[in-house]
Amino acid sequence: MANYLSLTKQELSNTFEQVKKEYETLKNNNLSLDMSRGKPGFDQLDLCGGLLDTVGEKYGYIAMKGTDCRNYGGLEGIDELRSLFGQVLGVEYEDVICGGNSSLQMMFDTITQGMISGFGGEPWSKQGKIKFLCPAPGYDRHFAICEYYGIEMITIENNADGPDMDSVEKFVKDPLVKGIWCVPKYSNPSGITYSDEVVKRIAALKPAAKDFRVMWDNAYAIHDLYDEGDKLLNIYEECKKVNNEDLVIMFTSTSKISYPGAGIAVEAASPLNMQIIKSRMKIQTIGPNKLNQLMHARTFSSYDKLTQHMKRHASVLRPKFETVLNSLNHHLKDTGVAEWTEPRGGYFISLNVLEGCAKRVGELCKEAGLTITTPGATYPYGKDPKDSNLRIAPSYPSVAELEMASEVLCVAVKYACLEKLINQAK
Amino acid sequence: MANYLSLTKQELSNTFEQVKKEYETLKNNNLSLDMSRGKPGFDQLDLCGGLLDTVGEKYGYIAMKGTDCRNYGGLEGIDELRSLFGQVLGVEYEDVICGGNSSLQMMFDTITQGMISGFGGEPWSKQGKIKFLCPAPGYDRHFAICEYYGIEMITIENNADGPDMDSVEKFVKDPLVKGIWCVPKYSNPSGITYSDEVVKRIAALKPAAKDFRVMWDNAYAIHDLYDEGDKLLNIYEECKKVNNEDLVIMFTSTSKISYPGAGIAVEAASPLNMQIIKSRMKIQTIGPNKLNQLMHARTFSSYDKLTQHMKRHASVLRPKFETVLNSLNHHLKDTGVAEWTEPRGGYFISLNVLEGCAKRVGELCKEAGLTITTPGATYPYGKDPKDSNLRIAPSYPSVAELEMASEVLCVAVKYACLEKLINQAK
Repeated sequence: MANYLSLTKQELSNTFEQVKKEYETLKNNNLSLDMSRGKPGFDQLDLCGGLLDTVGEKYGYIAMKGTDCRNYGGLEGIDELRSLFGQVLGVEYEDVICGGNSSLQMMFDTITQGMISGFGGEPWSKQGKIKFLCPAPGYDRHFAICEYYGIEMITIENNADGPDMDSVEKFVKDPLVKGIWCVPKYSNPSGITYSDEVVKRIAALKPAAKDFRVMWDNAYAIHDLYDEGDKLLNIYEECKKVNNEDLVIMFTSTSKISYPGAGIAVEAASPLNMQIIKSRMKIQTIGPNKLNQLMHARTFSSYDKLTQHMKRHASVLRPKFETVLNSLNHHLKDTGVAEWTEPRGGYFISLNVLEGCAKRVGELCKEAGLTITTPGATYPYGKDPKDSNLRIAPSYPSVAELEMASEVLCVAVKYACLEKLINQAK
Repeated sequence: MANYLSLTKQELSNTFEQVKKEYETLKNNNLSLDMSRGKPGFDQLDLCGGLLDTVGEKYGYIAMKGTDCRNYGGLEGIDELRSLFGQVLGVEYEDVICGGNSSLQMMFDTITQGMISGFGGEPWSKQGKIKFLCPAPGYDRHFAICEYYGIEMITIENNADGPDMDSVEKFVKDPLVKGIWCVPKYSNPSGITYSDEVVKRIAALKPAAKDFRVMWDNAYAIHDLYDEGDKLLNIYEECKKVNNEDLVIMFTSTSKISYPGAGIAVEAASPLNMQIIKSRMKIQTIGPNKLNQLMHARTFSSYDKLTQHMKRHASVLRPKFETVLNSLNHHLKDTGVAEWTEPRGGYFISLNVLEGCAKRVGELCKEAGLTITTPGATYPYGKDPKDSNLRIAPSYPSVAELEMASEVLCVAVKYACLEKLINQAK
């Protein structure tokens, strides 16, 4: 395939005319496809078929320690599930809280607590214009929490091995910098996993602010696409090695293990952080939905069963990722206007197109009936400074739909980039 | 029975000796009984036996509008349940949000939002030392939220027809007064229901603070003990009549309908309030556990079925309430040192003993193996100015246990009050 960057003006025009025709043909198919959110597909929802049928009149309602899960109580969740997620996150079960259905809510509530009650120091909201470090491209819902609270976001380059640590180490010298958002494994959206060195450097951070916290959103902790998955270093162990265990607050959930809307969210942290978090939680609620927790504990009765279950998700997701990646390779390889990640897990592919073209790609996709994540969403304030990054979510459509969707996407990328190159050549 | 207040010194001593013997005998039984929390008993938990078996592989996961309840989405909850609780609260379904398992959490989050983002005006936390009106005796968890946030609590007398409205109307002239906690039906702990006049006066409040909100915790909306229950005027209708619809935010839950730990919490309010609340919720979460909502919608498929179900709760609870009330009547009637409410619904009986004796009653109960709600808990800051009020929760123990527990309680009341009268007579 020709490298667009080395084409003459005339060659660009010719190629554009051809791409335009392809685009118009695709547009006439009146498609309605969605690659915008990391939403599991129906085929994945069915993998947990028996979950709801593990608790009820026939099987009872009693958890390990004799707790009747129907009644009030149990702020931290049931022990068998705390223990399981302790294994997932590599911490003791005492350091784990199993909550409701939304880890986003746990993160929001944790930031809220920082704002209004603080993490040991004054409430963040009383310390002036506080700031958060936001490795980008990153997860839009993390950034939305900061934006909602008026927390200034500082964009940190997210490289192939994790956030640019030189930058991070520089910025944490500012006492107004109170935290950093991390999706350390199969990062949203790039799919990369933090290297051991990056994890160690994060664990060893000595921020000027004593109430600085690493928001470690390990959403894809066991979400490998292949038998050989990425390995993430245990940040909590690394923190402990350097007497820094209060630095990090960890999150995960079963949203992409059991049911997206009805899973179990998990928060884990050091005894001091737990004490702070629980001092709020005990005022906020009497306890989580333990019946749903018991269903999960009975369905995933060991760590081994849990990882076996994840292989079934992988077998559904792998062909979807490969369909998109094959299409990108087929249509865009060597064009010089696009590059993308090839994640070994998680829910996203990150596609970078020629600078200044991402928004236009989004428009063209939309006109042709394909919804992709709003370009810019992967950056703080929804503004990608290079207008280059696109997040592709292959989980929800079927493989057949993904074939069409990827073609639309690739043609739109060609269209937008050629259009720009032609304009530049004028 | 003798009125203790008219006994001579010698008669008091004689009676006390007798009561002391009774108390020692009871103490030797080594009881372990709990009347401290409004926790439904096992017999009530079993009333919802089939609830978990209404959704699953056999019955599917699809709500009315075709929503797959397993997946993400649906911030406001599923429509069939919003509609049902619209009927319970007397509002349109559009004004209702069905959430997770905890209405306490919804209230906490609503107050938090007031503190940090505000209700139209500046955040409450930026307006100085804000205040809340706290009709008392009242619900300790409401007061705990205020205490957690350093919101100054102003105690309002809770009379037989609701809060003392002269006081309320006076205090709302202070622009730092931002709200009032109300449990309008079968109030916690007195069991009284607000009169029509009180509801109308609340609805017509014109507080100096535009961001003043009535926190209307209608926890016992349909929780009658008898066929003929108390009638509560629809506050939202009354507010609308006087163009005051943004004044009130309503809450209820199924914690005492289905399962205490795994029910559905409900928040309802005017379009403006909903807009404010949802502007936070959409950042905080992707949506509630819709599978649990679907189970509830299928179990309580009409308002009629719901109220029929409540009659089954009543048939379990009524004998428990009557056991305690009979015991109070038998032991304490005409002693002049105790008076109590005879609620027609809800979860509590409020017992007022001779001033300065409630804490002592608590101690004596504890020593004899009976846990009651910590005396003082029904007042702001846990301090009952008269040290007189005790909250009795008859729902959790069995009738047989309640017979013993009530006897312990009554003897402890006699003991504490006689002790005080003797000391006074010295």
